[in-house]
Amino acid sequence: MNSWSLKDTNFNESYQLKETLYSTANGYFGVRGSFEEGVNKEIPSVRGAYINGFYESEEIVYGEKLHGFPDRSQSILNVIDTQGISVKINNEIFSLFSGKVLFYERELDFKKGMVIRTIQWESPKGNIINIIFNRLASFTRRELFLINISIEAVNFDGAIEIVSTINGDVSNIVSEDDPRIGTANAKALSIVDLQVENNRSFIKSKTKHSKLVVVGGISHLNSQNLKESIEKEEKSINHIFKGNLEKGKIIFFTKYAVYTDTNRHPDEINQNKKILDEALKHDFGHFAISQENYLTKFWEVSDIQITGDEEMQQGLRFNLFHLLQSVGKDRWSNISAKGLSGEGYEGHYFWDTEIYIFPFFLFTNPDLAKNLLNYRFTILDFARKRAKQMGHTIGALYPWRTIAGDECSPFFPAGTAQYHINVDIAYSIIQYYSVTEDVAFMTEKGMEMLVEIARLMYHIGHFRNDGKFCIDAVTGPDEYTCIVNNNYYTNVLTKNLFVQIGKIWSELGGLQNEDLKNLTEKLHFESEELVNFEKAGIAMFLPYDAEKNLHPQDDSFFNKKMWDFENTPKENYPLLLNYHPLTLYRHQVCKQADTILGHFLLENESNMETIKNDYHYYEKITTHDSSLSTCIFSIMANRIGEYDKAYDYFINTARLDIDNLHHNTKDGIHTACMGGSWMSMVFGFAGMRLVDGELNFHPHLPKKWKSLDFKINFKNRILVCHLVSDSIQIRLEKGEPLNVIVEGIVVAVS
Amino acid sequence: MNSWSLKDTNFNESYQLKETLYSTANGYFGVRGSFEEGVNKEIPSVRGAYINGFYESEEIVYGEKLHGFPDRSQSILNVIDTQGISVKINNEIFSLFSGKVLFYERELDFKKGMVIRTIQWESPKGNIINIIFNRLASFTRRELFLINISIEAVNFDGAIEIVSTINGDVSNIVSEDDPRIGTANAKALSIVDLQVENNRSFIKSKTKHSKLVVVGGISHLNSQNLKESIEKEEKSINHIFKGNLEKGKIIFFTKYAVYTDTNRHPDEINQNKKILDEALKHDFGHFAISQENYLTKFWEVSDIQITGDEEMQQGLRFNLFHLLQSVGKDRWSNISAKGLSGEGYEGHYFWDTEIYIFPFFLFTNPDLAKNLLNYRFTILDFARKRAKQMGHTIGALYPWRTIAGDECSPFFPAGTAQYHINVDIAYSIIQYYSVTEDVAFMTEKGMEMLVEIARLMYHIGHFRNDGKFCIDAVTGPDEYTCIVNNNYYTNVLTKNLFVQIGKIWSELGGLQNEDLKNLTEKLHFESEELVNFEKAGIAMFLPYDAEKNLHPQDDSFFNKKMWDFENTPKENYPLLLNYHPLTLYRHQVCKQADTILGHFLLENESNMETIKNDYHYYEKITTHDSSLSTCIFSIMANRIGEYDKAYDYFINTARLDIDNLHHNTKDGIHTACMGGSWMSMVFGFAGMRLVDGELNFHPHLPKKWKSLDFKINFKNRILVCHLVSDSIQIRLEKGEPLNVIVEGIVVAVS
Repeated sequence: MNSWSLKDTNFNESYQLKETLYSTANGYFGVRGSFEEGVNKEIPSVRGAYINGFYESEEIVYGEKLHGFPDRSQSILNVIDTQGISVKINNEIFSLFSGKVLFYERELDFKKGMVIRTIQWESPKGNIINIIFNRLASFTRRELFLINISIEAVNFDGAIEIVSTINGDVSNIVSEDDPRIGTANAKALSIVDLQVENNRSFIKSKTKHSKLVVVGGISHLNSQNLKESIEKEEKSINHIFKGNLEKGKIIFFTKYAVYTDTNRHPDEINQNKKILDEALKHDFGHFAISQENYLTKFWEVSDIQITGDEEMQQGLRFNLFHLLQSVGKDRWSNISAKGLSGEGYEGHYFWDTEIYIFPFFLFTNPDLAKNLLNYRFTILDFARKRAKQMGHTIGALYPWRTIAGDECSPFFPAGTAQYHINVDIAYSIIQYYSVTEDVAFMTEKGMEMLVEIARLMYHIGHFRNDGKFCIDAVTGPDEYTCIVNNNYYTNVLTKNLFVQIGKIWSELGGLQNEDLKNLTEKLHFESEELVNFEKAGIAMFLPYDAEKNLHPQDDSFFNKKMWDFENTPKENYPLLLNYHPLTLYRHQVCKQADTILGHFLLENESNMETIKNDYHYYEKITTHDSSLSTCIFSIMANRIGEYDKAYDYFINTARLDIDNLHHNTKDGIHTACMGGSWMSMVFGFAGMRLVDGELNFHPHLPKKWKSLDFKINFKNRILVCHLVSDSIQIRLEKGEPLNVIVEGIVVAVS
Repeated sequence: MNSWSLKDTNFNESYQLKETLYSTANGYFGVRGSFEEGVNKEIPSVRGAYINGFYESEEIVYGEKLHGFPDRSQSILNVIDTQGISVKINNEIFSLFSGKVLFYERELDFKKGMVIRTIQWESPKGNIINIIFNRLASFTRRELFLINISIEAVNFDGAIEIVSTINGDVSNIVSEDDPRIGTANAKALSIVDLQVENNRSFIKSKTKHSKLVVVGGISHLNSQNLKESIEKEEKSINHIFKGNLEKGKIIFFTKYAVYTDTNRHPDEINQNKKILDEALKHDFGHFAISQENYLTKFWEVSDIQITGDEEMQQGLRFNLFHLLQSVGKDRWSNISAKGLSGEGYEGHYFWDTEIYIFPFFLFTNPDLAKNLLNYRFTILDFARKRAKQMGHTIGALYPWRTIAGDECSPFFPAGTAQYHINVDIAYSIIQYYSVTEDVAFMTEKGMEMLVEIARLMYHIGHFRNDGKFCIDAVTGPDEYTCIVNNNYYTNVLTKNLFVQIGKIWSELGGLQNEDLKNLTEKLHFESEELVNFEKAGIAMFLPYDAEKNLHPQDDSFFNKKMWDFENTPKENYPLLLNYHPLTLYRHQVCKQADTILGHFLLENESNMETIKNDYHYYEKITTHDSSLSTCIFSIMANRIGEYDKAYDYFINTARLDIDNLHHNTKDGIHTACMGGSWMSMVFGFAGMRLVDGELNFHPHLPKKWKSLDFKINFKNRILVCHLVSDSIQIRLEKGEPLNVIVEGIVVAVS
């Protein structure tokens, strides 16, 4: 097994799943791994292309609409299809579903950043060709999608015809019954212009409500002066190339496709033309080399090497590669739950970003992490508006799910009620500052977000009669118990914010800092508020059952009935698809780590004995129906010394998509789980924690592994970490010496 | 003021509100009090006719649909319009909005069961007529709607033309933003047949999804052999009557309209014809007399006389009359939240029936009360199905809102989560048995419902570690706090059922009773279950704060923040239209009586001191945003001796619709509040309670009143009650002597 790529040799199975796995993206756009030439109609397929942050908005229909329910949805759109290429030899159409497939292999190469499909095909009449498709979404020219084909006639001379299409007749999938897929209007894009100009074709489409425009442009180069003609149809344009195929001689054919959209390209069509023309100056090899160089740099700091476990190694690299493909790299975009690989969850951005994906970028590519926070700053005004809609007189409430900034969650008990997204974002900002010491970001953006979030959390809570600060009627990460009082996770993260914000404020110089002074004026921010935050932080109520030495997930959790796992048949999982929410709410049963996640993020708020107890208690009642769960249990199993379990949970995390463990990867990858697999390595097996600005390690390698190697970007340094058994060696690759703490002992790294 | 009628002399104001107030119904159908001749277009109007239980079902669209959410809605339909009559004299069309209105009065006469509209009108050219419209929905021929017109020329001779219309082009109103109005498809009925036959016209319409058919038929009689011609249009049919009008001579014109529908008339159109023909054998006077006789009997037992308060007297009679108009009198129908007077709440049946309306019928017209329970028995299989959908392996869960039996509540936190509807129904069955001693009903239907309800409640609950029986994740009557644990109201009513069911079972003879024996076989009911119910009843947890001597509404209620009433502007009420549910849930604020209602229904489960405390506590935080609240506070204010308050709350109850106190009577009457006004009298001022099969009284008359008189139908007796000041005299009008208890003292009634 080559752990630097994903390979497939069976094109007949799980086509839709593989469209996801072999999707090609660069953070700006993504194209699902459909076959250029198409498939038989009976094969389920979602042939899609998506632009990060490009969406349509529709009115949300409610059976019963109450005050403050979001009015409009936002759904990522399947945009113009530029994948289409059909090949005819001697009037026989190339298709894997006719004739004989003598050889088939598809490979997603993590180092090259390319998908390569290699086929030897015998036509029904016996003509054999070798045909290779390379496709790449350029990391260096974000609008550019390339398909390169080489065709070789093995046993004949004859005619060749290549038809390359750009097609504006696209639609989104719709599912009424699975809440994890969107319910948007299928046909949201309408074509406003089709243009052919100098062998280039362009389709311009627009949305009805969000008023966004997308342009797709294509053009071609080939190695043999094939004769080109162009046919314009109502909703698509075909470029037809004709010529001769000589036995043994290879024809190279490259399709250049460019996507531009309103947000990044106000003059969509002209900018498209310009980018396309510029690209056409270079051949496919040029972009392939740039792509590989870009990835070399990425892997240089991001790669994790496992010695002794090729399967996990491959899973991990697959995940990190897809995270890079998925992450938005401008202020219009973030990273959606399914990346750019499918339409699940409507392309929405959730808390997944901050708690599951952000750490990977923060500790390897802090600039990409910073962009994720910049995005949150971009939508801060939407969060302020939402706070008002929700009846808060002050502060900002970030949307549970959104693309452009408006709350889009139509089911508030497992949506808007998850106020913890606010403190998740705050947690990330604080982490970012600790790791990067980026003062400019904090004074310009970070502190403004922290203040508005803290205000909101202070407003939602109250001091109970016993003096404790309580937060009622929220939902924690575990959506199997909704609308509860004093969710441990929410409270502990809020406490952290309340306690940290004043410290950071002082560290940045307080009112001596001109930027902060301006900020106080802009926000009418009183220093008394900082005092209140601290008081509330200190008085924060963290539910705790002294008798059991356990933290209940919320005030009432331990009073509920236990779920009857014994009599729950396997096919009833995930429970959310088989039980009414009230049935779930009535029981002690968890979809995912909640209190355990709180312990992971803020270990010092409890003690190890209680954390262990909690782990054992919650483990028994957690179904891991969410893909966000096992990585946290893996990390925490490591922390409490249950190493075999840690490894088992990690397996479920690392290969969740490759092995389709949740049976829904066809709808898109699980980006949070991918981030979780990185966390399982660094926070899990290496046991890394950032405590009071210092890195702590608790290393323990799974038995099966010989070693584990990764790098950490920390305070402008690069630390090279090498784990063997229970020990870790840390070497400084870049930057000033510093101390780290390994199992409580200070170690100098130089 | 005549307290036996409602009168209006201003046709220009609040037309839509008065369409509700002057609606004409008989429990089978209802017609809003629109003017036969119509109004100017700019005047808001909902011209509607409704058949009890006649609905269309549409797919419910959810932004995010989870398991067990109801698939389809049920909405009462505006059916064929038979109101239309236009009058022309000398080619001038009669209209209150042209010429001069010299006299106008509309009267809803509670004794006659008729609406009489008396007008003297001068046409633009100076012709004066007296015109009187009488309309009645016959209580004795339930399909029959009659409009009788008398026309007299005051100052001229001339031509008269009367056009009477039947119109199938009808639609429902739609409101997107007010959850209290329906969101159904406006045009749900389509015409399948228009027939004219022997001066009778028929329109047959059907629904698309529920597959129900309604037929409207009309025919006419007049006193002057007016020449009749008939014009059939696409969706309506006009009967045109022409003749001469002689000064001083009155023309009488009667329109006979008959409604038949699938449920009650499988051969809709032929049965319609038959009923119409039969009706045409009699003149209007015949039906007017039957109507008055029917009402005489009704008032004979149902009337309540207040001496010294004409306004309240009128309000009360208006309410009781409308309840009679609204209540379904066959197994297809119940009594909807808005009766048959409007489209609010989609014509759904709620718990309002059992807890607010049932007592009035039970203690005056037990046969009508019995029918309400028969309806629940009719839909028992739907409740069993719903229980399964909700994950219960046993028992029945009644729908929170329905017409034909399926749960139609699209927002479960304030819908399906209100499991208390189950015990509300059980409470009514137990009451019914106590009051009527109707053994046949109990063995045939009542016990089956009790068993299935008890099973469900037992299944939803569990014994906590401390041995207490708890019920988690439900919503009590107060929808400002949803999905709570151990709602006092729900638990106390469940306790009552658990404790009573075994007793009634024994009383009925247990397995010695052949019917019950058959029932146990049919239901696979084990006697052990009765034992479990009793155990759970005894162990039922009723939340109680000993320090405060208060019952919290649920486990967590007292830990929440107090609502800031001081800073809540008046226009922000009702709060549900101005605050997101989470904001409400986070606070101690109540929409309506909840714990207080529990105390009213089951007084012996607490002590008077605690009840008083609770009253004062909850009074401060209850907004009465629900029309179901003030009557309960009135009753309980009486009970604890706060008599002035009791009277004030009663005022808000008795005239809520007449005075449009909730500003939404235009959408229909508030039947629950109407029932509540009867309760305020009997349970409030007379302080009647049924305890262990005996009637208790705690009489106290409001200062302003001289006396209060009403009758009670109890165990086949009629008790005549006369209240003066703090005393009550009870006389037996019918039946055997019995004892009652007045302020704790046993009093023999004979």
